[in-house]
Parts: sequence; structure tokens; C-alpha cells
Amino acid sequence: MTADRRQFLRRAMLLGGSVAAASAPARALAQETTAAVPPAVPPWSKSLGAPVLAAPYGVPSKFEASVRRRESPGLTRTAHSSVAFTPLQSLFGIITPSGLHFERHHAGVPEIDPHLHRLMIHGMCRNPRIFTMDDLLRFPSVSRIHFIECGANTGMEWANVAVPTVQYTHGMIGCSEWTGVPLSTLLDEVGFDRKARFLLAEGADGAALTRTVPMAMALDDVMVVYGQNGEMLRPEQGYPLRLLVPGVQGVSSVKWLRRLEIGDAPWNTREESLHYVDMMPGGKHRQYTWIQEAKSVITAPSGGQVLLDRGFHEITGLAWSGRGKVRRVDVSTDGGRNWRTARLQTPIHTKALTRFRIDWRWDGGPALLQSRVIDETGYVQPTYRQLREVRGTRSIYHNNAIQTWRVDPSGDVGNVHVV
Amino acid sequence: MTADRRQFLRRAMLLGGSVAAASAPARALAQETTAAVPPAVPPWSKSLGAPVLAAPYGVPSKFEASVRRRESPGLTRTAHSSVAFTPLQSLFGIITPSGLHFERHHAGVPEIDPHLHRLMIHGMCRNPRIFTMDDLLRFPSVSRIHFIECGANTGMEWANVAVPTVQYTHGMIGCSEWTGVPLSTLLDEVGFDRKARFLLAEGADGAALTRTVPMAMALDDVMVVYGQNGEMLRPEQGYPLRLLVPGVQGVSSVKWLRRLEIGDAPWNTREESLHYVDMMPGGKHRQYTWIQEAKSVITAPSGGQVLLDRGFHEITGLAWSGRGKVRRVDVSTDGGRNWRTARLQTPIHTKALTRFRIDWRWDGGPALLQSRVIDETGYVQPTYRQLREVRGTRSIYHNNAIQTWRVDPSGDVGNVHVV
Repeated sequence: MTADRRQFLRRAMLLGGSVAAASAPARALAQETTAAVPPAVPPWSKSLGAPVLAAPYGVPSKFEASVRRRESPGLTRTAHSSVAFTPLQSLFGIITPSGLHFERHHAGVPEIDPHLHRLMIHGMCRNPRIFTMDDLLRFPSVSRIHFIECGANTGMEWANVAVPTVQYTHGMIGCSEWTGVPLSTLLDEVGFDRKARFLLAEGADGAALTRTVPMAMALDDVMVVYGQNGEMLRPEQGYPLRLLVPGVQGVSSVKWLRRLEIGDAPWNTREESLHYVDMMPGGKHRQYTWIQEAKSVITAPSGGQVLLDRGFHEITGLAWSGRGKVRRVDVSTDGGRNWRTARLQTPIHTKALTRFRIDWRWDGGPALLQSRVIDETGYVQPTYRQLREVRGTRSIYHNNAIQTWRVDPSGDVGNVHVV
Repeated sequence: MTADRRQFLRRAMLLGGSVAAASAPARALAQETTAAVPPAVPPWSKSLGAPVLAAPYGVPSKFEASVRRRESPGLTRTAHSSVAFTPLQSLFGIITPSGLHFERHHAGVPEIDPHLHRLMIHGMCRNPRIFTMDDLLRFPSVSRIHFIECGANTGMEWANVAVPTVQYTHGMIGCSEWTGVPLSTLLDEVGFDRKARFLLAEGADGAALTRTVPMAMALDDVMVVYGQNGEMLRPEQGYPLRLLVPGVQGVSSVKWLRRLEIGDAPWNTREESLHYVDMMPGGKHRQYTWIQEAKSVITAPSGGQVLLDRGFHEITGLAWSGRGKVRRVDVSTDGGRNWRTARLQTPIHTKALTRFRIDWRWDGGPALLQSRVIDETGYVQPTYRQLREVRGTRSIYHNNAIQTWRVDPSGDVGNVHVV
């Protein structure tokens, strides 16, 4: 390993990607610059830096400007109904920085005054209530780490449209430490009718987005959330209040939550009958396919990155399951013929991202990188062939097939379909 | 509990504090505003919000502007050698948002080009090396959640200077998911001499801050870190590279890390002989008191906050230990005469913040709120009396005594010394 590492070209681009913001000329310059590298003392060691509190609320280094959310060039959109993707290729660990968490809205991001925001809970209950944010902040609280994945994540891959980077193939997912009130506490507070079987959640944005949630889920691990990664929710994530339905497609975790209605049948609203349904072979569709099944993806090396030389590389990525904990992740470098088991970051959280890592020695030849997760229910992430045998090719939602990255002898990494 | 909650005054200020950014007139206005509260439909439900990607890197709501780092008015300082404190009173869970993580510098924040940054490891080893950031990003990586606490945290309380809020009493602490390379991997890479007993770590800032680290720690859980909460380190936290010495006073986790020298004796540099030593009764001092012993503090209700009415309140706070995991946290509301055991957020990480929560019914009378942690070694957080019996009152560093918040019948919460 040591000998391999000594062969490194002194170029800037590498797996992590996020320190590779400089242009090629800048990188060439960097190689030639001797004023800053040992034995020279760099200029920043010979001067005062920025004062304390230069930023009362801190921001990333200017050298990380390329690590940002992006809209996919291939998507039709309006400015207010679109999605911006998380740059998974540049991230570490399991926590998604709140500033990089994907955003998807149907009518833009409302600017809500928390003092005027209210949550109404009504319908099949004895004591319908309107809660202020102050009321909600006062209830016994919990914090848990969970992912949120859009049901349409990886949706463009159904039809063999291989978008170039993992930001666009899998970037509609994030994972945060969420804080709020268990929904079961609030349902107890309003005295819900034990015959109730469903809830309707409604957002306070211009789309008034509505989604049906089964009562069994609501009484299990659903939360009414005001905190994300230690602070109040970001506006794009539903400030000041959202629903969190762990393990379920993101649209159900209604943002800017203003109303919960308790009932005994699904509502079949626009966003659960016209959209967010799974088209099947033969023209039928599946409705209310809530759960995000087990899925994984290699985030480095991934599409658009370049391997600069042979030898040791760490392959790393993310795995998750809407049904519980990740049990195991296997990695193949030959398109699925041989598999090795990856190391998992611990502790493993339920319905949360799990970081996996495995050592790899690249021999300089072509390679096909794949990851495959098995969750605690025993479910195995399917190949495209297996997924399409059941679901066809006309769907948008719930594509959890194994992703393949092709490594060329040049070191270039690209997206390729392996069925 | 239900009856109590119905008595809520419809005012904005509450425990969490972070939604209380509005002025008193604004809050009065909010009470009277009917246009936005049910059954009225609020204006933000009747219009388009901000477009997607209004912020490619997201920021908090404008209503959260008061949740920010602050310098303590009581500290002597220069603009480049000072500290800005974390607003613990407004935070949830265990993850500290990177933008709110306390910052303490000796010569300001250097702006370091990651392409030019180098880490030199030399001294007692066979193969001294200079690593680029690319080299370091390629090594096998780990991610772990740990706190960093300045050794001087709670330092002003030694002399009964009761600063008003938990931001100033305990705000020199943060907790993040850190990603990097185990230092033991890099020491193996350079072929360190088995007779070596200490390391010297040096920063690339204008202060060229240096600290001695025992080799036993270095080979245990010390990391060379480039990632924080999923992305590259923030500039104030050492971008692009820092040392992380879990459980040890923050100054040892040298930021902007440029040099590690391997040796066989401590270096006794300026920042470990003139400063960061513990003054003892009789004028002697203790040097190299690395470990941050077990400590806890209630963050809400805490100094400067107001309880608006009697009845149910959740008491919540943070506990940690530099020696491992938090085992138990007890809470008293009567100045330490009676104790109840709090709920702990799980999973509990080693050398990390642990959130505790406990229900409390305030009867409207005076109360003295305290928390007391016990760690997995059996160590019990001391009272001020116990701490001062050993350490006197002349120290600055390593004050881990039990903190008391006084609740007045008016509902005002203040800092009070209880020995």
C-alpha cells in the first residue's frame, strides 16, 4: 500500500471530490507553488486570520463552493415546482448538512412567521385542538436520526436515462437528527377515536399539499418535527413544523404542517392518485406504496469522478431501508460476479442512512462497481432485471435497483446500466 | 397535564427560546392577528413561495436570527484571540449545527488553500512523510460522533462570576459527526519508533499553536479529521484539516493541522505551560490535565429564559464525559435535596454529548434546577463544594461542577451559585 501511495500524482482531483474545486490551471499552479509547502512556511502561518465572529452563523470555506445543491438539467420544471439534489459524491458519514439537504416543493418555499403558525388536529376525536408553536415546543420531545427519500429518487433510471452523477441518480435523499413530539402524544391529547384508521396531513404552502397516513404508522414512530440537526428546521424543510413519517416516501412527511384530520378511509387526494403512484406493466398502477424498500449506492468513486492512479482506493457509499436497520452491504467490482462484505459505520440506526466502506486495489483495468444491501428483514436489494420483471419500465417511483458505476482504464467513472 | 396545557397564555416566548426572536410589540401584534390563524387561511397558503434553489447552500429562517454565536461581554479579548459561544439554550438533540459550533482562536481564522496545505509527520520514525489533502482523503476513513469542549468552559464560574445564560456558562462545547483517518494508520505509514512516547501537534495559523499528545492516546482513538457533520470542516473548525483528541480539552484538537512530530518527552510549549494549566490552592499548578471529566447542564429552562405559567414543563439538557459513555443523569428541582433520573437519548455515544429529558410540573414557587451526571466509570459530577475542596477557587480550567438555575415565582430563570 505504501509503495502505491508514493506514486500519487500531485494533482488535486480525488475521490472525496470536495477539495477539487480548483480549475486545472489552478491545480497546475499549485503543483509548482513552493512558497506554501514545506520546508517553506505558508503565508497563512505568518499573518492574522479573520477575526472571531467574522460569521456569527458560520458557512463553508470558499474553496467548497462547488459542493452545493443542484437541479437536474434533464428535468422539466417551473421555478416553484422542482427539486434540487444533494451532492452525495462530496459527503462523509451519515449526517446530511442541513444546507445541502435536497429540496422538493410544489409551490415554492413559504416564509412562515412561527408566531402565527398553527397546527389544527380535528376529525374523529373528542377534543379538536389548535396548537401554537409554543404549545408544541412544550410537549415531551424526542430526537431520532432518520432518512427522508423522495419516492421519485432514481426515477430517471427506469428508462435507461443514465444521468451522469450520483447527485442526480440518488441525491433526493438526506439524513438528519430530527427533534419533535411523537404524533401519538398529540393524538392522545385530542382524544382520538379508536375506530379511526387514517390521517390526512396538510401543508401551509401554496400547494396545500395533502397526504393520507395510516393510523397504525401514526401511532408507531411518526413525529411532528420542529428541529433538524440541532436547530429549528430550515425553511426548505418545512419551517417551523413538518410531519416525519420514517421509512416512507418523502412526500408523506408533509412540510409546513398546518392540519391533521382524523378519519376512517384514505382521502385519495391529487398527490396520491394522479402522482406518486407506481405504473405497472399492462397499464395498471399501484397506489399507496408508502415504504422505501432497502437500497444502497456507492458515492465514491461515482459518476463524474476520476481515479488518478492504480493501487489502493477506499470505496464508500450509503445504504438504507424503510423497514428498519441495514444488516449487511456487499460490494462487487466486477459487475456482480464476486462480492465482498463492506464495513458498516456504527451505531446503525433504524430507517437511517448507514455509511459503508471497503478497501479496493484498482489494477488499472475496466471495473464495474456495485453495492447490494440486505436489511434486517432479510430483504435483498434487487438487480434491474429483477425489479423490471415485476414492475416493468414505465414507473417513476420506488426504483431501488442496484446501481453500477463503470471505471474505464483512463480512470474516468461513469453511469452504466447493468441488468 | 391536559388541563394545564389549556391554561397556556398565547404569548410567543417559551422554553425552546428559538422561536422567540420577535420583539414584545411584534408578539402583541401576533396575538391580535386573526388573518393568519384558523379558521382564516394564512397568506403564505395563498401565494407561491421562494423558488427552488433560492439558496443553493441553505441557511436558517430569518426568524431564527437570534440563534447565533456570541462573544461574552465579560471577557478581555482581541478581535483575533477570543471565543464565540454556542447558543445551547436554543438547540435540540446532540448534533451541534456546524454554523453554531463555538469558535476559539489565538490568531484568527486562516484562509487555507486545500491544494497547498500539507501535513508533515516526522521525528522518531523510519519514513517521515509530507501528505497532501489528496493523500489523506484516500486513506481508509472512519466517522464518529464526539464532543469538543474547551478546557476553560465554565471558567468564569470559579470565582462566583455568575454569567447570565447557558450560552456563556457552558457554550464552549459542541458535538459533531467527525470523519477522517485514524492517527494510528498514519503513524504506521511513517513507521513510528515504538520507543516514542509523545507527539507534538502544530497548527498552520498565525499562532502556530502547539500541543503535546501522549502516544497512548494517539494510538487509541485520535483522528486526523477533514469532515464535520457530513461535509468538509468549516474554516473556524480547522479547514481543511485538524486533529481530534476525543475526551480531551479542545486546545489539544489542533486546528489547521500542519505538523506532527514524534518524540519521547512532552514539549512544554507556551500553550501548555503558561496557559491551560490548573492553578491549585497554595500556588502550585497541575500541568497536562488532559481529560474533560463528566459534566452536565440543564439547557432549558436556563438563565435568561422565562416560564410563562405553572404546570407541565420538560426539563432538558446535555451530559458528557471525556472518559467514555454517560451512564445516568439525575435532575433536582430543589437544589439537590431530591433527585429523579432523567430519560437519555439513545444510542449513547462514547465521549459525546448525551441529551437528557425529564418531565416537571412547576407549582409556581421558587425552584433550584440542577443536573448531575454519572459516567460509565462510576464518576459522579461534583458539587462546587466538593470541587473547591480539592481545587480551590483560583483556577480557570476544568470546572465540571453542578450548575444551578434559580426559578423565581415570576417565572424568571437566573444563574445562582449553590455550594
